[in-house]
Amino acid sequence: MSPERGSGVSEPAIDREARFVNREGRAIDREGPAATFEVGLLGFGTVGSAFAALLEERAAAIEELTGRRPRVSGVLTRRGGDLEEILGGCEAVVELMGGLEPARAHVLRAIESGRDVITANKQLLCEHGEELFEAARRHGVQLRFEAAVAGVVPVVRVLCETLAGAHIERIHGIVNGTTNFILSEMERGLSYERALSEAQRRGFAEADPSEDVSGRDAAAKMAILARIAFGAPLGLGDVPHEGIEHLRNDDLQYAREFGLGLKLIGTAERRHGGLSVSVHPAFLYAGHPLASVGGSFNAVTVESDAITEITMSGPGAGGRQTASAVLGDLISVISLPAPALAPSRPLQVIDDVESAFYLHMEVADRPGVLATVAQILGEEGASIKAVLQRGVDDNARLVMVVHPLLESRMREAVRRIGELPCARSTPRVIRVIEEEFQ
Amino acid sequence: MSPERGSGVSEPAIDREARFVNREGRAIDREGPAATFEVGLLGFGTVGSAFAALLEERAAAIEELTGRRPRVSGVLTRRGGDLEEILGGCEAVVELMGGLEPARAHVLRAIESGRDVITANKQLLCEHGEELFEAARRHGVQLRFEAAVAGVVPVVRVLCETLAGAHIERIHGIVNGTTNFILSEMERGLSYERALSEAQRRGFAEADPSEDVSGRDAAAKMAILARIAFGAPLGLGDVPHEGIEHLRNDDLQYAREFGLGLKLIGTAERRHGGLSVSVHPAFLYAGHPLASVGGSFNAVTVESDAITEITMSGPGAGGRQTASAVLGDLISVISLPAPALAPSRPLQVIDDVESAFYLHMEVADRPGVLATVAQILGEEGASIKAVLQRGVDDNARLVMVVHPLLESRMREAVRRIGELPCARSTPRVIRVIEEEFQ
Repeated sequence: MSPERGSGVSEPAIDREARFVNREGRAIDREGPAATFEVGLLGFGTVGSAFAALLEERAAAIEELTGRRPRVSGVLTRRGGDLEEILGGCEAVVELMGGLEPARAHVLRAIESGRDVITANKQLLCEHGEELFEAARRHGVQLRFEAAVAGVVPVVRVLCETLAGAHIERIHGIVNGTTNFILSEMERGLSYERALSEAQRRGFAEADPSEDVSGRDAAAKMAILARIAFGAPLGLGDVPHEGIEHLRNDDLQYAREFGLGLKLIGTAERRHGGLSVSVHPAFLYAGHPLASVGGSFNAVTVESDAITEITMSGPGAGGRQTASAVLGDLISVISLPAPALAPSRPLQVIDDVESAFYLHMEVADRPGVLATVAQILGEEGASIKAVLQRGVDDNARLVMVVHPLLESRMREAVRRIGELPCARSTPRVIRVIEEEFQ
Repeated sequence: MSPERGSGVSEPAIDREARFVNREGRAIDREGPAATFEVGLLGFGTVGSAFAALLEERAAAIEELTGRRPRVSGVLTRRGGDLEEILGGCEAVVELMGGLEPARAHVLRAIESGRDVITANKQLLCEHGEELFEAARRHGVQLRFEAAVAGVVPVVRVLCETLAGAHIERIHGIVNGTTNFILSEMERGLSYERALSEAQRRGFAEADPSEDVSGRDAAAKMAILARIAFGAPLGLGDVPHEGIEHLRNDDLQYAREFGLGLKLIGTAERRHGGLSVSVHPAFLYAGHPLASVGGSFNAVTVESDAITEITMSGPGAGGRQTASAVLGDLISVISLPAPALAPSRPLQVIDDVESAFYLHMEVADRPGVLATVAQILGEEGASIKAVLQRGVDDNARLVMVVHPLLESRMREAVRRIGELPCARSTPRVIRVIEEEFQ
């Protein structure tokens, strides 16, 4: 804001000056050559080494853009490096070590010593987010974390900046690439076990995949998104989650006959003046913007009255992709101040919400069975939208989609149906996201 | 950056202070009540009035976030209002009048008087972008324009901030909602004329739809995206564009047999060390992230080696939606400085690029005709990927997809085929975007 500099032709030096008046306390010599911007790197695994390589590759372009050439000035790994020494020689810290400790202690120390911090650590933000946000506010430093949720998909920035003033109603996200890959393979006919092996073979799943397939990883990310979008300080314990281990590929085949595809969906939405955040496998109609997100991609749909909806998708993981998201944050740290995060404010967590359901059950193939099942559903308030019935030996397989009702009432209906003398197996239930789009 | 303020509990007043040290020259009384942020509004049509309403609706939430309550302090319409008076009473100007003049003169005047400017005016940016960017740089003010391209889809911010350091290879965009709606209707079997009427009836097309259906509107937006992504100062004249008026719904039916869907695609990409920017109808395979974007939605896919790709989609128009995009920019103007725009640098515009093609022709149903056509294609370097042949009375309809070749050579092949004695109509040619995804 310097209208008095209003004459003459712009030169790179003036550009640089215009940019740097915005960053107090970091004045560089305006006459001299562009200074470097020193970055302390915590962690040097897949993402850490990819970040260091990408930073070097793009350093010249970033210098042209911001006037400062970023450079890794120190690295802390399990085997070596001294945190205080690294902090003494850098302006910003990039935390890519993962896990809760010592990451939490290191990040807090970096913040307390006035360093901006960029992290890709979703567990850390989910468990200790409020403490870190508060520390960053108190010390006037930036805490950026685009890479912690949905890889390169720019959902954190879009929520914090583009939609900072929007009244967000709902977020639906596919925020775990491992499970999306497995479900895509199951849709092609593979069993859960074979799809998981294939994911492991291709590097999309860990040897121990439980964090991903249990829905815990997605739940942590949804807690972070809910924090940004709704200002509610949530931890992992506030996010009921269900994984994909119990899914069977015949559910996917039946659902296809109803025009439905299966995804592991994280939802955060306003309901009855409170907030409902959860992660569940859910069926989507073909027109839903998340229905076509295949393989290991992530995607997030944000809905609000004024914007209708925005959907963003991209690779959910990968060392170089995650490093790119970190790099975008680093450039903002170099050139922009932190966008304001809406103040945190506890919202009531609603845990019994309405949903449509897919119901799969095996029953004795006798007259009156469908009527009995339909009556129980009716008594619990479930209205049937579509039914498929198939004979299998002496049994019948009944597959239904029911219109939205409270989860607790659906659970009660399923319990009652499972206790019928004609029931041949425990009914299986999967949520259906009912909106059809456009 | 005030590490010395490191003790005690954060209070709203401290928050506000921390935010405002970033905006020099706009200090507000830190002890007193939050100040208003006065906005001058130029234009009060559909978008202008929607913006004024949305601003009032969200003013309290924005105050909570930024510490300042935005308020429209003056409006300029065709019927009244005084520009100088409005400038005297505001900190930022929102230009929603559209068209080149007087919008250009007003925006320049606002910039020269030190006001930040937000505009949704794509023609203005496409024709006079360099002049305006240069003026904004010189006067140290922000010029933000998210709403000018793809409505609420946050592609401008993501390119300028998230991807500021990325080496972008290519952008594919559906940046015109009118044509996407018409093509979606044609895919359902409607003729072009009926689909256009339907679009007009539902408010997605103007009474005179030529700006949209000719591809001009999309070309202007692609020029702006190319400016941001590649730093190349392009005008409308640098963007070859083709519309959708000549398309026939049987092309869409045939293409479906190859698994292809038709979209009006804007492309901006690095090719042979230069830049190719164009707008054409193009076929996409079902797995392409833009293939499922239906109705009046817009979407943009950005590709770079390090990110793989990011796709963003959302409503491309609508008063309230466009107003939302403007509001996101306004909040950034209140709380953030301008992100740096990569310096402009002319890149060679490449106008003969390789593409795969769909080819539709009617020929006499005689032995040897396919061989003759195939030979001409082979001589011009076109390799056939798939063929459909159907008898129609005495004629045969030949529909092909050929692998990528230079556009100039495909044109030559089509000219030669059209001159064959067996040709019964001029062959129709539509580009095919060949990548299959995931």
